[in-house]
Amino acid sequence: MGRVTVRRPVLRIAENGNRTRPDTLAAEEPLEIRVNGKPLSVTMRTPGHDVELAHGFLLTEGVIADRDELATARYCDSPGPDGRNTYNVLDIALAPGVAMPEASVERNFYTTSSCGVCGKAALDAVKLRTRHSPATDPLSIAPETLIGLPDALRAAQRVFDSTGGLHAAGLFDARGELLVVREDVGRHNAVDKVMGWALMQRRVPLTSCVLMVSGRASFELVQKAAMAGVPMLSAVSAPSSLAVDLAEEQGMTLIGFLRGSSMNVYTGAERVAITESA
Amino acid sequence: MGRVTVRRPVLRIAENGNRTRPDTLAAEEPLEIRVNGKPLSVTMRTPGHDVELAHGFLLTEGVIADRDELATARYCDSPGPDGRNTYNVLDIALAPGVAMPEASVERNFYTTSSCGVCGKAALDAVKLRTRHSPATDPLSIAPETLIGLPDALRAAQRVFDSTGGLHAAGLFDARGELLVVREDVGRHNAVDKVMGWALMQRRVPLTSCVLMVSGRASFELVQKAAMAGVPMLSAVSAPSSLAVDLAEEQGMTLIGFLRGSSMNVYTGAERVAITESA
Repeated sequence: MGRVTVRRPVLRIAENGNRTRPDTLAAEEPLEIRVNGKPLSVTMRTPGHDVELAHGFLLTEGVIADRDELATARYCDSPGPDGRNTYNVLDIALAPGVAMPEASVERNFYTTSSCGVCGKAALDAVKLRTRHSPATDPLSIAPETLIGLPDALRAAQRVFDSTGGLHAAGLFDARGELLVVREDVGRHNAVDKVMGWALMQRRVPLTSCVLMVSGRASFELVQKAAMAGVPMLSAVSAPSSLAVDLAEEQGMTLIGFLRGSSMNVYTGAERVAITESA
Repeated sequence: MGRVTVRRPVLRIAENGNRTRPDTLAAEEPLEIRVNGKPLSVTMRTPGHDVELAHGFLLTEGVIADRDELATARYCDSPGPDGRNTYNVLDIALAPGVAMPEASVERNFYTTSSCGVCGKAALDAVKLRTRHSPATDPLSIAPETLIGLPDALRAAQRVFDSTGGLHAAGLFDARGELLVVREDVGRHNAVDKVMGWALMQRRVPLTSCVLMVSGRASFELVQKAAMAGVPMLSAVSAPSSLAVDLAEEQGMTLIGFLRGSSMNVYTGAERVAITESA
C-alpha cells in the first residue's frame, strides 16, 4: 500500500528562517463499504488494512459477531479519474442467514422508540446488541504494566513518526505485550482496524485484553470495545461523560489520562491490581 | 446549560499515592437534527449552542447558505427516562422554496456518479456545492499574528480547563482578534457551532477571517471552512493529504503545526505576509 503517506511541498516558517521543503502527510481517502451490493457507509480513512476495517466496522456496529458471518470481502472495480481502480470500494457478502443491516446502522445506536434520543437510549442500544459482554472478565493488570502501554503504542506507530498526524489504537494482553497496532486519520477507524484484525484472527471476544488509544475516549470508542468484548479501555486523554456511563453499564474498566506514571480509573477499578506498598 | 460538564468520582493512581476524588468530564449526548419533521442526522455532541450547531451543520453540508433559508429552529418535546425533556432533538423548518436535503447529506460529499468513490470526487462535490468560495479573498496576515492564535484560542477555552477533554474552534479577524470560540467533544461539532454563530450573525461568507482549530486538519474541516467562505484554516496539528488537496482546489490557505513560533504553510502562502528581515 503506497498510499498510507503522501509527499507534498510545504513552506516552513520558523525563527531560524523560512524555507520550502517536502513534507510527508497522512493519506486520507473515502472508503465505501457495500454489504451484499448495497452501499452501507462511507468513511474517510487512511488506506491500508481496509478488509480489517470493514470486519471491525461490521462487528462494532452489531452486524456480525463472528468471522464466519462474513462470507467474502473484495474491492470493487471502482475506476478513478485516471481510469485506474481507486481501491476505495469494498464489497462485503454476508454468510447465508445473516441479516442485512438497516440503512443507517449508526443512527440506531442513539435512538430507541421508547425514549427518543438520549444518552440512556444509546446505552440501552449497546446492551441490546453486544454478544460479547466484558462484564465478568477476570482481567487483572498492575498499574506498573499499564504505565508502559503509551510508550509501547507510540513506539509501534510507524506512520505517526513521519507525519505527526495519525491516531493509533493498540491491543495488549494482560502482561502488557502488544498484539497489534493500527493507525488512521480517524480514531474510530484505527479501532475498527484493530477489532477487524482480532475478528479475522478468531480472537473475539477479546477476553483479558486492553485496548489503548492515543487520544480521547468517546462513547463511540467504548461502544466499539464493548461490542468486541474488551474488558479494559485506556486512553492517553480524557473520557467523555457518556463514555464513562457506557463503560460502567457494560462492566468495562475505563482508564483516562494514562500518561507518565499516573492515570485516572473511571470505572471497573477492581481490574487494576494495586499492591499495598509498605 | 448545566450539562456542559458532568462530575464523576475517579480513582487517581499516581506516584504520590492513590485517592478517589471527584473529576469533571466533558458532557457528551446525542443530538438529532430533524428538517421539516424528518430525521436527518444524529451527532454525539457536548450540549450547548445546539441551534448554532444545527445552523452550521446545514450550512457546511450545503443545505442552506444564508440565515434566511432557515425559518425556525426549536427543541422537540423529547422526554427522557425521567419524563423530562432531554433537549436532544432539534426540529428545523426550512424557509419556503429551500430544497429538502437528501437522506444522507454526508455521503454525497464523497461520491459522484462519474467516478465512484475517490478523493477527486470528494473535491468535486465541494466545488459543486459551495456558494462562498474563498479563492479571491484578499486576506493578508503576518506570521507574528498567526503565532499568537493558539494561545488566544487556548485562553478562551473555558471547559477544556476543567475537563482536559474538548476540541476547540475559534474564528479570528485579520488583526488576530478573537470573534468567537466554541468547544465540543467532536471537532466537527466545534467547527459547526462557530459556523452557525457566523451564519446567525449574518457574517457568512467569512471574508478575511481565520478559522483556528485545536487539533488536526482533516478533509471534513477544510470542507466546512470552504462552505462558509473562510480563506484561511490553521491547525495546531497535522493536516491530511486530502485536506491539503481540497484547500488548494478551493484557493484556501491551509496552515498546520502552528505551535510555538513556527508553522507549516501547505497552500495559499500568498496570504501570509512575510516581511524580509534585514
